[in-house]
Amino acid sequence: MISSSSTTEFGSYLKAIGGTIRELRKELGISQEELAHRSSIDRSHMGKIERGERNVSVVNIIRISRALDCAPSLLLLRAGI
Amino acid sequence: MISSSSTTEFGSYLKAIGGTIRELRKELGISQEELAHRSSIDRSHMGKIERGERNVSVVNIIRISRALDCAPSLLLLRAGI
Repeated sequence: MISSSSTTEFGSYLKAIGGTIRELRKELGISQEELAHRSSIDRSHMGKIERGERNVSVVNIIRISRALDCAPSLLLLRAGI
Repeated sequence: MISSSSTTEFGSYLKAIGGTIRELRKELGISQEELAHRSSIDRSHMGKIERGERNVSVVNIIRISRALDCAPSLLLLRAGI
């Protein structure tokens, strides 16, 4: 979980990343459960990541990007950060 | 701290990110202590991030990138991921 100060200052970035993950997932036509499975991430944690409620680690960004067939740098670029 | 399995599989990525942070910091001509200060990250944690020993969070990637005057997506691109 992220601290409330991080939520305030960085929440918009986390939401942008989560929204981009959701968009790329929908473009692939797979469910959140399937993305969680392919990324080896707990499904409820994946839901929180997509909603921008978690300060996702770079290892999980890499896992998710692989499952979405997208470079981590491109995922962030698409999220506008 | 990251788990040993994450270290094994993702250690090279964490080292690439840390090495890129160090390179960009040296290009700016600032010390690790100064980068830690500008990023609001504990100095010993910054040292572990630069050595690829920590699974850095995206919020800290954003903080460090700001301090390095580099977009987070470009930092990852330069790290080759």
